[in-house]
Amino acid sequence: MLLHKIVEVREKINEWKKQGLTVGLVPTMGALHNGHLSLIKKSVEKCDRTVVSVFINPIQFCPGEDLDKYPRTLDADEKLCNDAGVDIIFAPSPKEMYGEGHILSNDFLTYVIPPFFYTNKLCGKSRVGHFDGVCTVVNKLFNIVQPDFAFFGEKDRQQLIILKKMVKDLNIPVEIIPCPIVREESGLALSSRNKYLSSKDREDALALSKILFNIKACYKKGMKDPQILAETVYSFLNENHSLEYLEFRDGDDLEEKKVADDNTIVFIALKIGDVRLIDNVSLK
Amino acid sequence: MLLHKIVEVREKINEWKKQGLTVGLVPTMGALHNGHLSLIKKSVEKCDRTVVSVFINPIQFCPGEDLDKYPRTLDADEKLCNDAGVDIIFAPSPKEMYGEGHILSNDFLTYVIPPFFYTNKLCGKSRVGHFDGVCTVVNKLFNIVQPDFAFFGEKDRQQLIILKKMVKDLNIPVEIIPCPIVREESGLALSSRNKYLSSKDREDALALSKILFNIKACYKKGMKDPQILAETVYSFLNENHSLEYLEFRDGDDLEEKKVADDNTIVFIALKIGDVRLIDNVSLK
Repeated sequence: MLLHKIVEVREKINEWKKQGLTVGLVPTMGALHNGHLSLIKKSVEKCDRTVVSVFINPIQFCPGEDLDKYPRTLDADEKLCNDAGVDIIFAPSPKEMYGEGHILSNDFLTYVIPPFFYTNKLCGKSRVGHFDGVCTVVNKLFNIVQPDFAFFGEKDRQQLIILKKMVKDLNIPVEIIPCPIVREESGLALSSRNKYLSSKDREDALALSKILFNIKACYKKGMKDPQILAETVYSFLNENHSLEYLEFRDGDDLEEKKVADDNTIVFIALKIGDVRLIDNVSLK
Repeated sequence: MLLHKIVEVREKINEWKKQGLTVGLVPTMGALHNGHLSLIKKSVEKCDRTVVSVFINPIQFCPGEDLDKYPRTLDADEKLCNDAGVDIIFAPSPKEMYGEGHILSNDFLTYVIPPFFYTNKLCGKSRVGHFDGVCTVVNKLFNIVQPDFAFFGEKDRQQLIILKKMVKDLNIPVEIIPCPIVREESGLALSSRNKYLSSKDREDALALSKILFNIKACYKKGMKDPQILAETVYSFLNENHSLEYLEFRDGDDLEEKKVADDNTIVFIALKIGDVRLIDNVSLK
């Protein structure tokens, strides 16, 4: 069932809660692919009812980012959700979520702000305010849908860690279920932004997973020094690549790792031409 | 029933929710007086179950404020609540609410930050960060107790307006019930901080309500110019008074009023010796 209004969703949720049914939420920005589908399947399996939200959240895009050209494919998203057994597709307008005529700044809007220690690194460094927008909209979705479980992909691992921290800090009555990255056979992690890649770019984009898998292989052979492990990166890069970061960080609190261990996540952000892609791998 | 642990409260709440009972929350910092009691009575009347939280929230006190000397009277508070028919008194420790060994800054803690337009004036001007701490703790309490209704006094009117804005912006499924200020026969608004007043101070503290009632009387006689109305203040002040602000603001969004009308709130903050008191009146 496709719903656009908060009040319609609430009505359905209240009905379900009265019946004692559990609710799963899969928050998305649409342009659904098999990565999303794996989250949706997990929710449908685990919960009595599943809500997929499709909302391109303006306040998590920074100036100059791809808000306007971000892929919008609601008809296809709806079909995919229906086929997967989703009960509600919640696709609100920006006006429905943030009201009309308001400047979406923290001058006039209540924000949920994750801790600086978690956001001043990795993607948060170049995407200033991004995670404030993410936490605010996810908090709103949690309040609207009141899910028992919420499903997030490990692809956006910094986001996942920050949202887990938000849930803990604010005592939100939801359990966050992390879901593994889904990859093409080539190793490329699925992402809605892969649509921006030319076929030449697509080839170059394989560098992300190749770099991460190579580092993991070296770690498994006994190499523990992040600096030395990081040096392997350069053999995978060409002139179409621009490396934003390659970092070794703790899987719980994102602290930098001086020595790699099983709780280390290796994070990478790489530009292929104009397209910025991210990926990560756990060394465990 | 006096509970100290979040998990114990959750258990009770889930039991009630399963039975379809409505829950009212009265958040307090303890040192309960007849003002609080009026909120509690309203909740007990309106809701199937009532929770009163007693928590002196460290993150809403600014450096140099009265966190350490704030009155703590849990035994008396418990008795008052029990007599009034409260079902749960929730009195967590700071550790229970914020964890151990953490610096309670936004470096390491997720905060709920109300809009600057609402916090950069009145009490927010001198108490920087105060309303960030209030919104964060109230958000936590809402997530722990999941009340259908939450009761706040109009005494802290800026707080009430900011919390209503938070509920709206974050789509929190709770209805905020404003409760009128309770006054002594003398006109003095009840406040836990009145305990700091000497008997001479107590006399001087009457200036707050006298000033507000006089302005309201003038308004009712047809005076609409805030500047002229504000000038009446000086006939009520002596050398033991230090006026922090006297302002005419909109009852919904705190915008400054150039012309007083029925949706105007007159706000005052006054120091009596070392004790800072606030009060307000609606011109309606």
